Amino acid sequence: MRYLTSGESHGPQLTTIIEGLPAGMPLIDSDINEELARRQKGYGRGRRMQIEKDTVQITAGIRHGYTLGSPVALVVENNDWKHWTKIMGQDPLSPEDEGEVKRKISRPRPGHADLNGALKYGHRDMRNVLERSSARETTVRVAAGAAAKKLLSELGIEVAAHVIEIGGVVSGKRDYSSLKELKEVTEESPVRCLDQDAGQKMMDAIDSAKENGDSIGGVVEVIVEGMPPGVGSYVHYDRKLDSKLAGAMVSINAFKGVEFGIGFEAARKPGSEVHDEITWDPDKGYYRKTNRLGGLEGGMTTGMPIVVRGVMKPIPTLYKPLQSVDIETKEPFSASIERSDSCAVPAAAVVAENVIAWELASAIVDQFYSDRFEALKASVEQQRKFAREF
Amino acid sequence: MRYLTSGESHGPQLTTIIEGLPAGMPLIDSDINEELARRQKGYGRGRRMQIEKDTVQITAGIRHGYTLGSPVALVVENNDWKHWTKIMGQDPLSPEDEGEVKRKISRPRPGHADLNGALKYGHRDMRNVLERSSARETTVRVAAGAAAKKLLSELGIEVAAHVIEIGGVVSGKRDYSSLKELKEVTEESPVRCLDQDAGQKMMDAIDSAKENGDSIGGVVEVIVEGMPPGVGSYVHYDRKLDSKLAGAMVSINAFKGVEFGIGFEAARKPGSEVHDEITWDPDKGYYRKTNRLGGLEGGMTTGMPIVVRGVMKPIPTLYKPLQSVDIETKEPFSASIERSDSCAVPAAAVVAENVIAWELASAIVDQFYSDRFEALKASVEQQRKFAREF
Amino acid sequence: MRYLTSGESHGPQLTTIIEGLPAGMPLIDSDINEELARRQKGYGRGRRMQIEKDTVQITAGIRHGYTLGSPVALVVENNDWKHWTKIMGQDPLSPEDEGEVKRKISRPRPGHADLNGALKYGHRDMRNVLERSSARETTVRVAAGAAAKKLLSELGIEVAAHVIEIGGVVSGKRDYSSLKELKEVTEESPVRCLDQDAGQKMMDAIDSAKENGDSIGGVVEVIVEGMPPGVGSYVHYDRKLDSKLAGAMVSINAFKGVEFGIGFEAARKPGSEVHDEITWDPDKGYYRKTNRLGGLEGGMTTGMPIVVRGVMKPIPTLYKPLQSVDIETKEPFSASIERSDSCAVPAAAVVAENVIAWELASAIVDQFYSDRFEALKASVEQQRKFAREF
Amino acid sequence: MRYLTSGESHGPQLTTIIEGLPAGMPLIDSDINEELARRQKGYGRGRRMQIEKDTVQITAGIRHGYTLGSPVALVVENNDWKHWTKIMGQDPLSPEDEGEVKRKISRPRPGHADLNGALKYGHRDMRNVLERSSARETTVRVAAGAAAKKLLSELGIEVAAHVIEIGGVVSGKRDYSSLKELKEVTEESPVRCLDQDAGQKMMDAIDSAKENGDSIGGVVEVIVEGMPPGVGSYVHYDRKLDSKLAGAMVSINAFKGVEFGIGFEAARKPGSEVHDEITWDPDKGYYRKTNRLGGLEGGMTTGMPIVVRGVMKPIPTLYKPLQSVDIETKEPFSASIERSDSCAVPAAAVVAENVIAWELASAIVDQFYSDRFEALKASVEQQRKFAREF
Repeated sequence: MRYLTSGESHGPQLTTIIEGLPAGMPLIDSDINEELARRQKGYGRGRRMQIEKDTVQITAGIRHGYTLGSPVALVVENNDWKHWTKIMGQDPLSPEDEGEVKRKISRPRPGHADLNGALKYGHRDMRNVLERSSARETTVRVAAGAAAKKLLSELGIEVAAHVIEIGGVVSGKRDYSSLKELKEVTEESPVRCLDQDAGQKMMDAIDSAKENGDSIGGVVEVIVEGMPPGVGSYVHYDRKLDSKLAGAMVSINAFKGVEFGIGFEAARKPGSEVHDEITWDPDKGYYRKTNRLGGLEGGMTTGMPIVVRGVMKPIPTLYKPLQSVDIETKEPFSASIERSDSCAVPAAAVVAENVIAWELASAIVDQFYSDRFEALKASVEQQRKFAREF
Repeated sequence: MRYLTSGESHGPQLTTIIEGLPAGMPLIDSDINEELARRQKGYGRGRRMQIEKDTVQITAGIRHGYTLGSPVALVVENNDWKHWTKIMGQDPLSPEDEGEVKRKISRPRPGHADLNGALKYGHRDMRNVLERSSARETTVRVAAGAAAKKLLSELGIEVAAHVIEIGGVVSGKRDYSSLKELKEVTEESPVRCLDQDAGQKMMDAIDSAKENGDSIGGVVEVIVEGMPPGVGSYVHYDRKLDSKLAGAMVSINAFKGVEFGIGFEAARKPGSEVHDEITWDPDKGYYRKTNRLGGLEGGMTTGMPIVVRGVMKPIPTLYKPLQSVDIETKEPFSASIERSDSCAVPAAAVVAENVIAWELASAIVDQFYSDRFEALKASVEQQRKFAREF
Repeated sequence: MRYLTSGESHGPQLTTIIEGLPAGMPLIDSDINEELARRQKGYGRGRRMQIEKDTVQITAGIRHGYTLGSPVALVVENNDWKHWTKIMGQDPLSPEDEGEVKRKISRPRPGHADLNGALKYGHRDMRNVLERSSARETTVRVAAGAAAKKLLSELGIEVAAHVIEIGGVVSGKRDYSSLKELKEVTEESPVRCLDQDAGQKMMDAIDSAKENGDSIGGVVEVIVEGMPPGVGSYVHYDRKLDSKLAGAMVSINAFKGVEFGIGFEAARKPGSEVHDEITWDPDKGYYRKTNRLGGLEGGMTTGMPIVVRGVMKPIPTLYKPLQSVDIETKEPFSASIERSDSCAVPAAAVVAENVIAWELASAIVDQFYSDRFEALKASVEQQRKFAREF
Repeated sequence: MRYLTSGESHGPQLTTIIEGLPAGMPLIDSDINEELARRQKGYGRGRRMQIEKDTVQITAGIRHGYTLGSPVALVVENNDWKHWTKIMGQDPLSPEDEGEVKRKISRPRPGHADLNGALKYGHRDMRNVLERSSARETTVRVAAGAAAKKLLSELGIEVAAHVIEIGGVVSGKRDYSSLKELKEVTEESPVRCLDQDAGQKMMDAIDSAKENGDSIGGVVEVIVEGMPPGVGSYVHYDRKLDSKLAGAMVSINAFKGVEFGIGFEAARKPGSEVHDEITWDPDKGYYRKTNRLGGLEGGMTTGMPIVVRGVMKPIPTLYKPLQSVDIETKEPFSASIERSDSCAVPAAAVVAENVIAWELASAIVDQFYSDRFEALKASVEQQRKFAREF
């Protein structure tokens, strides 16, 4: 499977084309809209989330509720495009419009793609950069991920995410009786936190950051249950599944790190406390007594839950000024803004969930027979049986 | 650029074919042998490092010390292959040999690819898995990386790595006056640590782990100076350079996490202390006053040093037994071994250095004009100038 | 560069996302609409070409007439979608609609993808196949190609196509004083033929086929002038430019063969009459006295015009019945239709032109420095100079 | 599946690494050596074929006669490397050697990659080009293809090739009772021709070309029986199987065209004589009464034999001089050589066979479940059954 996305933050619409979904898989707009709505929630978001109620249009690849096997195209319109038709229009400007629209952005914001993008593509108006580097693009990544989540779900694979740290406040509760419970509880939490007390402190930290004109980041954890063992491979470095998941996580805007299982803690513990002992049961087949390695060994799934965490830096757009330089005048200036999100971690958890879902669905579709969805299901079930009886 | 590797741990040889190197670039065997030797050093390694003195044979793509533009093939022979010709032979076994060689490996080691690989490929003799999943393969990844390091070096880009944590002992010294100094100091340290005191404590920790029949992991940091700004891109998620570096780092055997700049610390600090303010100087052009984001913003190089860290779990092969299950009898057994490395972090630092070098060289070759090495050099220099004068 | 397309023949729209175009390249909707209009012309087309006046909407990647460097999305709406919302709707059918829409297509047409597609994807309603396998998809391939043609044109590279054979009638005139002349003359010809007499006979052959309820195919030739030498490569089989062009040509619906220069004639001539002698001129540098190899040697451009031809089979939808089998009843039936194009070769010439343009633009963007369009231009110009002075 | 090749014509060896073969597939060196020997036979070859008796060494990926799932590496040594160690050595030349080896090639041969390669990579010694652009590289493409043929054969898919035209002499016999018969007869023919009379005339034509100091080309036809229907896809242009086969065929050195089924004849016949009517039989399922489209419709296999032809131009190295220009002096000269093959078409038929086999095996491995060879077999068999009962 592969997908491309397009769209600028204030352009007419965002689009994704997904190529390689099996035929005959159920998929309807509400499967996608649900994820889009989840992405727009979350304590600490600014005004734009209220303006845009994202909904998807399916323009190809689905008929009467099922995939056709042909590329699926998903469109999310930008509702405020009508206010931007001149500034972001496709056509060359008329001389009269030129004046009106002239306000070029020459002041790069620290922590954004503005300056690097300008130096790369030669854009002296950095709107040409920020319109695409904006996290608005994650909307269609979530849309593509929603299709992937649906595929996984039909195969009995569930993906969930929760926030485990915001602005230094760490969730004290990591245990959950079932993924279903984890989903239900975190869905109710404005910061997607399983630990209600920590969740409240996170909201306090967000409020406090806002008051200070500052912003805060955090850590999200994605958990996946039900993957058959042996997805991914050790035979070549670029086929390792954890490598793909790491790349995907870091590709999310503002993410600066990723870890699996106990992650960086593995540098502090002896081997005897890091590895997961193997056991066997006539009904379940092989399994691990613990899951410190997060469901991945040798670049492959073990059959245990996948546990992967990513860290998001604080949003760089602050009320509190950061120093920068105007590229036209070369004069220093203080970069600050009037309003913004002060924390986007809860939304990022939804993005992470969907981005990880995409990689897993893609790995499954690549590895198993997948022209017909029924055959894919049977093929995955066969592998589960093979592993159980091995 | 792209490369494939082949070779089993006790097979005749390891091979890599590198496709896409520019023509006319200087490259000789000692450029590669030096990196191979560095990979074999390090406190805490077991006996095999003494057996194998890896040296490269160049079998294609180089003539009289320069690349031809055609694929470069590098071979590293396994010196003890002569003892393994029957066990690892390519030909079908004769009935008499069959008996001798029969000793199948049916006991998967926790923390290794053994069991997952067996479940995936249907190998009831898990030697068929471990021969390829072994970290021996990193030898040719280092060989390919050495070619990449040479390319970078000729473009004025230097790559170095050091160990900043082993078994919970953290290096107290991160500052260095120059990358040259960092290289010189860490090259002398048996654990590749810049901080001499911490280095000693790391060695003590390794000794102590060995005594306990245990193993320890650690954290390595790769630093790259001299990258032009604007390598990578924000325009599509799979073109982000940090995403590629993250994937590469986690593809190294036993690596469980990766972070850039201040990394996971970004979850604990306000935005005002995370982002790097931008300044400008008539001679240097734009630069950052700090480098908390590790030289990467918006999926692109900023021109500041790239700083990326990876965590390696402890080696899973321990004297101290871990429980597992024999796949033939389904009986539990205690997995332990007679001898092994107790810490491979210093060697992993060299692997990380070369793996990162590959990704950067590859990104540069893809982005700039690169048929002729001289033209590549000029193309990179032009971009530096463009950025300086922007 | 890469692109994906989506869209069913009677769905709401066709879409393409193009990733990798340089920033700062001029591109407006009329550049694309012109090619779309050319594709819809041509003697021998049926009614649909009159219904659909294809026009493009640019929904991403272009601002004020220039590319941004971000993915470009192009949409062409299907004007008769309003009549197909139920039959081709995305949502599951309500029970009452179910009856109305039930008319499943169970009769595969010989020569179409219907049956193979059904066997692959498990579609018992073959509308699920034919909606995507339809040549309607070439609309957006032309749209993507139009962007590529624009890029080439700005670099001084011109692409043209003409029809050299239809239904056994062969154009007697292959010489042209300039590509400009070739374009002008063939643009006026309803069958895109340079030879006016042959053109008339081709139209007669089309009329005659129509009367017989039959269809005819033909051969189109694409000519490209201005490519710098050395695009493509001999160093690896999958980097040969002619290989890519061959793959592209055959990927056009109904194309069954491709040849370069004298093509299959090379099997009938001695080497001394096939190869192009090399000469040199202080102003032009190296060039060939003849161009029998069609501008490509060793998988690379020679700098001479590229000449590539493709053969299109007759349209398989005929008034004259062909025998087939109903997949529900397994009863044989006579596949015939009420109306159709009887010849689509002139339109296919436009498709071929644009598909070839895409491959060439893509090869150039991959090979040269291409973040900024101005830098790409300079990089190509440098290579031309290098070759001239070599 | 993917593979890279390396090696210069007079370097130490040719190598290929094949990544993605399923585990547990039988493969031994004689499977490959047989194809290498077939490639070296054929009327009209020069002296080198006698010097080099190519044999393969398997250096990775195979154990005791079965694939491991890990990359397979195949090496073919160049037996005369010992005479070329200085001219083609990897190390920089010592000053004394410099003189001896200095003989640079500054005279590009028409019809070869020499000049274009020099202009691209900046090689003033064109040995740096011709060593890699030589058809010697097809040796390892055949080796890779041999592994693919083995895979196909185990799945009941047979690939054969024969020569149907040399120097204008056309084989009159295309019918064969079975592919087995075709193989047996053509294997005995020095020109791989099914028609004994035409074969004799082809040899006469080769002799006559040789006497004239000239060379001749020809047409080869590859036939594949046993492919399940539905391999390839119509849903996206770059997934069409015929597109891939066309690209592969033209990637063979000196090939200038490719066609499927009746190929270019489709331009001369009405649709009613081009398309293959569909019929059905309770035992076989759907099949075609004729096979004019060569087993491929809509970019997918139909289940009928695949028939694909490629045209090879005459070898460009002639006794009869062709004019060219010395790149140092810019003086014209007459390019001629002392000895060479005068026709390489029979050998090219073997190359074509193996190159096509690779693409088909690759398409199958990509499409079906393929970690374990037994599972792949079952998966393909299931699809055959599904199609038969559809």
